[in-house]
Amino acid sequence: MSKLVIVGTVAFDAIETPFGKTDKILGGAATYIGLSAAQFQVNSSIVSIVGGDFPQKHLNLLSNKNIDISGIEIVEDGKTFFWSGKYHNDMNSRDTLVTELNTLADFNPVVPENYKDAEVVMLGNLHPLVQQSVLDQMTTKPKMVILDTMNFWMDCALDDLHNVIKNVDVITINDEEARQLTGEYSLVVAARKIHTMGPKYVVIKKGEHGALLFYNEHAFYAPALPLEEVFDPTGAGDTFAGGFAGYIAKTGDTSFENMKNAVIYGSTLASFCVEKFGTQRMENLSSDEVQKRLMQFKQLTQFEIQLT
Amino acid sequence: MSKLVIVGTVAFDAIETPFGKTDKILGGAATYIGLSAAQFQVNSSIVSIVGGDFPQKHLNLLSNKNIDISGIEIVEDGKTFFWSGKYHNDMNSRDTLVTELNTLADFNPVVPENYKDAEVVMLGNLHPLVQQSVLDQMTTKPKMVILDTMNFWMDCALDDLHNVIKNVDVITINDEEARQLTGEYSLVVAARKIHTMGPKYVVIKKGEHGALLFYNEHAFYAPALPLEEVFDPTGAGDTFAGGFAGYIAKTGDTSFENMKNAVIYGSTLASFCVEKFGTQRMENLSSDEVQKRLMQFKQLTQFEIQLT
Repeated sequence: MSKLVIVGTVAFDAIETPFGKTDKILGGAATYIGLSAAQFQVNSSIVSIVGGDFPQKHLNLLSNKNIDISGIEIVEDGKTFFWSGKYHNDMNSRDTLVTELNTLADFNPVVPENYKDAEVVMLGNLHPLVQQSVLDQMTTKPKMVILDTMNFWMDCALDDLHNVIKNVDVITINDEEARQLTGEYSLVVAARKIHTMGPKYVVIKKGEHGALLFYNEHAFYAPALPLEEVFDPTGAGDTFAGGFAGYIAKTGDTSFENMKNAVIYGSTLASFCVEKFGTQRMENLSSDEVQKRLMQFKQLTQFEIQLT
Repeated sequence: MSKLVIVGTVAFDAIETPFGKTDKILGGAATYIGLSAAQFQVNSSIVSIVGGDFPQKHLNLLSNKNIDISGIEIVEDGKTFFWSGKYHNDMNSRDTLVTELNTLADFNPVVPENYKDAEVVMLGNLHPLVQQSVLDQMTTKPKMVILDTMNFWMDCALDDLHNVIKNVDVITINDEEARQLTGEYSLVVAARKIHTMGPKYVVIKKGEHGALLFYNEHAFYAPALPLEEVFDPTGAGDTFAGGFAGYIAKTGDTSFENMKNAVIYGSTLASFCVEKFGTQRMENLSSDEVQKRLMQFKQLTQFEIQLT
């Protein structure tokens, strides 16, 4: 069993969808990644920062999932990062209503001593310099580094982003971001360009249309499960990344064949995340439910054509 | 080996894409469907209408693919249906520049005598009354009727469309059209509503995002092959439908498991269609190439997670 370091936000979200709205609830990339990876009972540690306003019960929730929280700095006189957004009727686009960086503005990640030799590192969506700082603290070269990012950093910190991308094995990015990063419309050509930037594996997330895994000239496609309704898409991408990273940490197998499984696990876990507001569904998810849904993914994609 | 009746347009297209433009070239739904189904060496017959301006060489092309053309009426003093369109840079949307119905305005389909007992009927995109007229001419109940349609008929002939949909086994429709037909955003809910309109099988085409097959509460997903470049999307949906119908006609097996294979064959053939302008690629496609690409579809989608 490998160790997994997760860096990312632990935050408050306020979400509005066509199905309702929430007050400030538990959110943040590292929260979703951690809850998702916890399905694999790996040893994981979240590196993040919160303010004195962050309730102990949220920290307990993470601890109870066997997540090490010693790397979550608490700034007693500071406030926790807060994001608020409203989804459009199609659930595929959203407006950001509020972004308060608060303590995140001065975030200096510190990897706990006993996680500096972790085999798997998941760099959640943050400033690329913060992501790089986590890598710099690792005392042994991780077996696999996975990076998530977004268009915001391409707009305002592109050089820093390129520098950290050089040092990662896997990038997870959505289709529009892949196009922005490379200037290529074709995702096949975009993935090829991203390979030359560093990552051996390129995962392109397409929301309700699933995810593509590229490895040199090979491609693998995981659909999203067709759902009756998407209740709240918040955290789906992070849940995908957490499932991916958790599965790699559990198996320790970084072959292309196993990366396919990691993508399927990521898609499976993401399909639960969107069923309820915030982290609610991921907090109460049994391994039986996961196994049952994996079976649905098999039925959704597997076929038996005999080639002649 | 079953017989396959295809009704649809045989036409001239003029196409402009970011890669170039064509003069009037061979086009039409029935043309693409026929060329695609021809991969399965089934006995097929196209029911359509053209004008005296339609070149004999185009008719010969179809004949040489073993397609019966006795149901293609030639109106010597009439002109062939003509469509012209221009694709946007993303290749996912297009503007229609010209639509000249010409002889199509008075199209009265006549099914050849020896095809009135065909087991498989493919109703290409046409006025729903024309589609129904073909069904009315069948002397024995076909084993499988497949219907393709578009939003235009929902706007201007919705009652007629509902009447013919009642009589079909499979509908192929794109995602936006499924939403328009049902008023439902979720494709799962939309497919369930379409089931109640008649079709046991609902195929929702999502272009570059693949296709979904729904059968009661079961779903199957065929991705589109990620392509380096899409040269010309014209006819891809019809090529998909032709591959689907041709495979059903060849195998005579209408089980859900075999429908999955039909969807994979449809996607496979559509992936060739878009590689060149018009029908060019489909005119010269070997069965070896098809088998090789089917193997790519297997690699793209198949995985080996052991469920616990």
